[in-house]
Amino acid sequence: MIPPVPFTHPLRVRYAECDPQQIVFNANYFAYFDIAMTELWRVAAGSYGAMLERGIDMVVAEASARFLGAARFDDELDLEVLISRLGTTSCVTRHRILRGEEVLVEGDMRHVFVDRESMQKTPIPEWLREALAPWALEELASG
Amino acid sequence: MIPPVPFTHPLRVRYAECDPQQIVFNANYFAYFDIAMTELWRVAAGSYGAMLERGIDMVVAEASARFLGAARFDDELDLEVLISRLGTTSCVTRHRILRGEEVLVEGDMRHVFVDRESMQKTPIPEWLREALAPWALEELASG
Amino acid sequence: MIPPVPFTHPLRVRYAECDPQQIVFNANYFAYFDIAMTELWRVAAGSYGAMLERGIDMVVAEASARFLGAARFDDELDLEVLISRLGTTSCVTRHRILRGEEVLVEGDMRHVFVDRESMQKTPIPEWLREALAPWALEELASG
Amino acid sequence: MIPPVPFTHPLRVRYAECDPQQIVFNANYFAYFDIAMTELWRVAAGSYGAMLERGIDMVVAEASARFLGAARFDDELDLEVLISRLGTTSCVTRHRILRGEEVLVEGDMRHVFVDRESMQKTPIPEWLREALAPWALEELASG
Repeated sequence: MIPPVPFTHPLRVRYAECDPQQIVFNANYFAYFDIAMTELWRVAAGSYGAMLERGIDMVVAEASARFLGAARFDDELDLEVLISRLGTTSCVTRHRILRGEEVLVEGDMRHVFVDRESMQKTPIPEWLREALAPWALEELASG
Repeated sequence: MIPPVPFTHPLRVRYAECDPQQIVFNANYFAYFDIAMTELWRVAAGSYGAMLERGIDMVVAEASARFLGAARFDDELDLEVLISRLGTTSCVTRHRILRGEEVLVEGDMRHVFVDRESMQKTPIPEWLREALAPWALEELASG
Repeated sequence: MIPPVPFTHPLRVRYAECDPQQIVFNANYFAYFDIAMTELWRVAAGSYGAMLERGIDMVVAEASARFLGAARFDDELDLEVLISRLGTTSCVTRHRILRGEEVLVEGDMRHVFVDRESMQKTPIPEWLREALAPWALEELASG
Repeated sequence: MIPPVPFTHPLRVRYAECDPQQIVFNANYFAYFDIAMTELWRVAAGSYGAMLERGIDMVVAEASARFLGAARFDDELDLEVLISRLGTTSCVTRHRILRGEEVLVEGDMRHVFVDRESMQKTPIPEWLREALAPWALEELASG
């Protein structure tokens, strides 16, 4: 029943990601969420490309974020992600972006798994479900 | 009690905004929401810069989107926005992105008004509240 | 011998394109060059997509720019482009970005035409050469 | 007379940086050049922010690149940079982007040093010239 430790990936804020308010432009945090997932997939399943090679892709269905603080140029951030729900054909990830102990952004993404050729919805294959399980809230709870 | 007609701004999808899936990368839709607001502000209040000159700026507090369809390179989209809530110090906008009659994205943004110098929360000035009223759900409802 | 009138496309600077120096981040001007070409292709050849459908794509071989002035948020710019050289398999475009009469950026791009499937170099098809001729320096000179 | 070893910084290609051709969109390579400089400044001079705090900023005057190969999603690249000319008020950097032994991009950037407040051209301060010298072609040659 112990919740999984989130996957964490470090990220340095780039100059081009900041706007005239001297802070990261809000849309870029969603790009950061995507990076966190790419890196989680690498550790869990070989890589995002390895999943593609096995005929599975993902499309985004929902995204949301709450902005609690602002990241600035050259800040060293930690991108946290864990899987809060692994459904039959979709996957919800929970994200946090931290600067040290300070949580700057919290958010959620919902992705749908699709057949890479048809881009039609497809069930998560068992090998991927197992690969992601260590970072999934529900999977552990049901264990 | 007639709901306001949303403000609409046309937008052509750029090549650089599309990703290897041949569709607009999800984070870019949040940048589109921002463009819709800039253009609404222009019509309502002179421009975003005119608001800045009067000492008021805005920061994003929340953002969310549901992706119902995918926009592609060179698509001509319509960015719709209306103000679903004008609070004391914050403003919620409701967004839709359409390609013809098809709704591709729905979303919401919550911005907080801040003093431009201190970047601290500040009440929406009366002149701005009046300027935005024609696109605000609640303002009309209370009229 | 009259040089062609450059193709011109208007563009409004977006907030997200500006950096903490309050000006357009330099790399974004190259994205602007790309937009100018997309719009020239639309007028000359139907659209970039129409060229793709006929089996031709383009890849960038060289890009350069000189920055003479800085564009800022909400500036209304004019993107100018003309074709300074139409070779057998490549095409050089000359770009200027203006704010009113003021030239902010000058630059050049060299693209190579490729077969869309193989992505291998291919001669510019005659239909495309003719379509682009009205904006090409050399073509006119040889006329 | 030994030329300096270029400064090298590793970079992983992000999904959002790739376009429908499945390769990094050309303008993004210029953003990569900027990252290489930020990281060189960190090693040489504390950080870009440390330079700002001492009242000096930089603006881009020229940028150019030759594209020899294409980087793809998830590629691990090396960003190389050295200073090919340190003038009185400007600085030319020479860039290469490699994937393993393969050179994908070569380019040059010219930046002008400016007073951070006035944004007017200013001579490179001696402390910065010394800090950058180990990566400068001319400085070594004159040593």
